[in-house]
Amino acid sequence: METGDHVVPIFNGECQNCGYCKSEKRTTNLCENFRVNPMKSTMYNDGKCRFRTKDGKPIYHFLNTSTFSEYTVVDSACLVKIDRNAPLQQMTLLSCGVSTGLGAVWNTADVEAGATVAVFGLGAVGLAVVEGARTRGASRIIGVDINPDKIIKGKAIGITDFINPKDLDKPLHEKIREMTEGGVDYSFECAGNLEVLRESFLSTHDGWGLTVLLGVHPTPRMLPLHPMELFDGRKIVASVFGDFKGKSQLPLFADQCVKGMVKLDEFITHEMPFSKINEAMQLLIDGKSLRCLLHL
Amino acid sequence: METGDHVVPIFNGECQNCGYCKSEKRTTNLCENFRVNPMKSTMYNDGKCRFRTKDGKPIYHFLNTSTFSEYTVVDSACLVKIDRNAPLQQMTLLSCGVSTGLGAVWNTADVEAGATVAVFGLGAVGLAVVEGARTRGASRIIGVDINPDKIIKGKAIGITDFINPKDLDKPLHEKIREMTEGGVDYSFECAGNLEVLRESFLSTHDGWGLTVLLGVHPTPRMLPLHPMELFDGRKIVASVFGDFKGKSQLPLFADQCVKGMVKLDEFITHEMPFSKINEAMQLLIDGKSLRCLLHL
Ligand SMILES: NC(=O)c1ccc[n+]([C@@H]2O[C@H](COP(=O)([O-])OP(=O)(O)OC[C@H]3O[C@@H](n4cnc5c(N)ncnc54)[C@H](O)[C@@H]3O)[C@@H](O)[C@H]2O)c1
Ligand SMILES: NC(=O)c1ccc[n+]([C@@H]2O[C@H](COP(=O)([O-])OP(=O)(O)OC[C@H]3O[C@@H](n4cnc5c(N)ncnc54)[C@H](O)[C@@H]3O)[C@@H](O)[C@H]2O)c1
Ligand SMILES: [Zn+2]
Ligand SMILES: [Zn+2]
Repeated sequence: METGDHVVPIFNGECQNCGYCKSEKRTTNLCENFRVNPMKSTMYNDGKCRFRTKDGKPIYHFLNTSTFSEYTVVDSACLVKIDRNAPLQQMTLLSCGVSTGLGAVWNTADVEAGATVAVFGLGAVGLAVVEGARTRGASRIIGVDINPDKIIKGKAIGITDFINPKDLDKPLHEKIREMTEGGVDYSFECAGNLEVLRESFLSTHDGWGLTVLLGVHPTPRMLPLHPMELFDGRKIVASVFGDFKGKSQLPLFADQCVKGMVKLDEFITHEMPFSKINEAMQLLIDGKSLRCLLHL
Repeated sequence: METGDHVVPIFNGECQNCGYCKSEKRTTNLCENFRVNPMKSTMYNDGKCRFRTKDGKPIYHFLNTSTFSEYTVVDSACLVKIDRNAPLQQMTLLSCGVSTGLGAVWNTADVEAGATVAVFGLGAVGLAVVEGARTRGASRIIGVDINPDKIIKGKAIGITDFINPKDLDKPLHEKIREMTEGGVDYSFECAGNLEVLRESFLSTHDGWGLTVLLGVHPTPRMLPLHPMELFDGRKIVASVFGDFKGKSQLPLFADQCVKGMVKLDEFITHEMPFSKINEAMQLLIDGKSLRCLLHL
């Protein structure tokens, strides 16, 4: 990489040199040097921080990238070089939610044309799953969210049906099984909620249904599934960063976005100056925005 | 099928006509008409029993087959026609444990040459997993059992290492990770115990390890796994009857056994007359036998 290159920062670094990055037979995008420690990342080469408070105390690097700042210091394993002509407003979306959701559909589940899909939680990640399912030609894309406004973006991107669980008089998975002759082929948990996780698991078709776990579950509670339930042929796997190996595979993905194979416009809900970062955060928290583009 | 055909009875029937049996894109060996209801199976065509007590009360069909008797009545969906020249002493093993264990390796996990494998519980199912791993050319096959005698059959069939968890001064998964540079590629739970299930899950390599659940877990306890543990890239799936579609795929498997690709001799530990069925059961319960061949 050279000074002036355009790059996308990624939390899930790829050193391209460890046993995980180099594993050929069994691919994984877990690099042993950049396991995500969201709150306490430091620089890999010396284990130290590059930021400090006014009185000299170290500030950790957030998610290996620390991008809520005008300048940052990032290990090159966490930087993806992209084409200089690629529109930066869109490319910034590839750092997390969009790659995670699209990748979960393309790489983790490998959804095929005609498949039926249910997406639980229509934030940036869930909507990127919708975009992934649309680009793969899914025949049915059911969006689920407790925020009724999410139907708007959902439809704009590609859901064919919307369910607000609060409006139902029966368990969510029963409703979805009724709508899809026994259950969807694929479900994606993008809400970070264990009840939702269980519903998404039970919403798939027995025999072959696959649930992809994307939501982060910071509770001590264990998986709400009984071992015998696995014998009905439903599967569950988790996906980190959509199973993309960031540094080596994101450049192609970025190209596909630039060429319009993936539509990213709908993911930009607001453009605001950097000085309004706190307002932007509030819009996110209120579920009114997906990603706010901050500029100087 | 004709009178006089040689058949292998299977609990996991295949009607070859329902949506599950006919599903082409997504294969499953769950037939909607022969879901296993071990204790209360009846005949599919009329929902009735073919056996009754002396005073006329119906006796359910056990596991769709009721083979602890000299004659039985079975739906043809639960009968696999085999070559008349195939040795019946060996073919009887294909009805359950051997097909389940071998199939879990060949079909469910699709273990490849050079892979490392750990097998938890060396009963008939676990030893069939060992045989499956051996036939696939696994480089390391670690057998685990709390019964120290299990090392004998284990070695005869193909384990390269034996661990009795009772002899360890550290958690089992730590020991296995030490032995295999971070964990095995595949683990198989064949003990029907949730602590063993958790150890088998944690014994695989992060990033790509796959645990196949074979043991039946009749406890109300849920899966002892935390959702975030799935983000380390370890996977878990269950396998019923080794994912073999019994009626259509077992004939080929039977041929492979007859041709010696799979060695079955070690699985026959005793030959006893039918009148000694209770002694045979006791040998099984005591862990002294695998399968007793009963004859008239
Ligand atoms: N696996 C990964 O690599 C990865 C990467 C990025 C984010 N994440 C995780 O993915 C999840 C989604 O991220 P996001 O940025 O889209 O978050 P978000 O907060 O924008 O979206 C979550 C959505 O779920 C909805 N929701 C909440 N509770 C619900 C319920 N009970 N039923 C239905 N819908 C419900 C919310 O209304 C919201 O629309 C988070 O848990 C996040 O931490 C994982
Ligand atoms: N998935 C399927 O389709 C299928 C088919 C057949 C059997 N099964 C199940 O597979 C399991 C094994 O069947 P089997 O016939 O081999 O049984 P088995 O009783 O012959 O073998 C179980 C083995 O596990 C060992 N064991 C018990 N507790 C252990 C522990 N804590 N740690 C290590 N080893 C332990 C025992 O000593 C024994 O050798 C059972 O749960 C059975 O119900 C499943
Ligand atoms: Zn690496
Ligand atoms: Zn069927």
